Amino acid sequence: MVDKSAPDATRRSERARRAIYAAALELVGETGYRKTTIEAIAARAGVGKQTIYRWWPSKADVLLEAFLDLGEQAARLPGHESRGIPDTGDLAADLKSVLRATVDELFDPRFEMPYRALAAEGVVNEKLGREFVGKLLEPQLQLYVRRLRAAQDTGAVRPDLDPRIALELFVSPLAQRWLQYTGPISYDYTDTLVDYALHGLAPR
Amino acid sequence: MVDKSAPDATRRSERARRAIYAAALELVGETGYRKTTIEAIAARAGVGKQTIYRWWPSKADVLLEAFLDLGEQAARLPGHESRGIPDTGDLAADLKSVLRATVDELFDPRFEMPYRALAAEGVVNEKLGREFVGKLLEPQLQLYVRRLRAAQDTGAVRPDLDPRIALELFVSPLAQRWLQYTGPISYDYTDTLVDYALHGLAPR
Repeated sequence: MVDKSAPDATRRSERARRAIYAAALELVGETGYRKTTIEAIAARAGVGKQTIYRWWPSKADVLLEAFLDLGEQAARLPGHESRGIPDTGDLAADLKSVLRATVDELFDPRFEMPYRALAAEGVVNEKLGREFVGKLLEPQLQLYVRRLRAAQDTGAVRPDLDPRIALELFVSPLAQRWLQYTGPISYDYTDTLVDYALHGLAPR
Repeated sequence: MVDKSAPDATRRSERARRAIYAAALELVGETGYRKTTIEAIAARAGVGKQTIYRWWPSKADVLLEAFLDLGEQAARLPGHESRGIPDTGDLAADLKSVLRATVDELFDPRFEMPYRALAAEGVVNEKLGREFVGKLLEPQLQLYVRRLRAAQDTGAVRPDLDPRIALELFVSPLAQRWLQYTGPISYDYTDTLVDYALHGLAPR
């Protein structure tokens, strides 16, 4: 909510910023990253293009901030009170619950097509890909790193593992199925990934 | 090699087919999937566009066959005598050797940019994505399924696991690092994935 006591100019800016984010996400989802222009975002948001250039140096910056804002909005929804990964002491249960929430987000219509457009451009545009990962994806992966480190402290994960690699055993399969349509996605599937990763493929 | 006793027309067709594959891969790597046209492929290959339309119904079909052909050429190089995954009886060693060869292929300049262009289009074009996976990627993943089933028979992998999901624990992390630039790729990294996947993150 905008503070009702804010000066009119601040309220107007906040409204313009929201309109620009919404327009940028809609357009990139509809036409792809390359065809989305600052001019088109400005037209759809009902602002002058100078307003956009005053706040952001490039199209990539508008879009990255629009995604960050979408993530922050999602984090404020019921069930997402915390941006972290829960630590109930049951690592498998905690990872499964976060991956189930990720499945829901990946198929959220506000999110899916814009995120696909940005991810696709990142595959062929290394600079954008690295920026996208550094600002949007890596901060989320670091939440898993912290949870796995806590599990190493309690003995639930082997102390010699690199948690940044370990998390990929359950995160990357979901990412690949979603990005490349390599297989169906369900809660059952992500639960299975967690079990396989924790217990390993070799018999115990 | 073309059979030297083949009639001239067959030799000419084979030469045209190779030129078309090469042109299609170069163009898609240079300009992306959407900007690559049958006309441009024909011009670069030095053939009429009707020659292309006679053999393939669409741009997607030319490209998918060009990739299949590239894969078959790679399979004939030294070190790739077999299209399967070796079965020396040491599952970890076999998986590590195949993943190391995959790392080499992912950074092969003939392969990297065209493959990125096709993968990027597949992220935002579900129909092409599914065709790409069904014809190019899934047949390779099925080689891992067979190797993991053999390992289940000898007791090296737990019998209750679904091998189609299990393989993703070491294949998908490499795919995601390559597609999204989420981290460095090395033999050490892929070896580590195999060890973590086989032994699991939880202490034994």
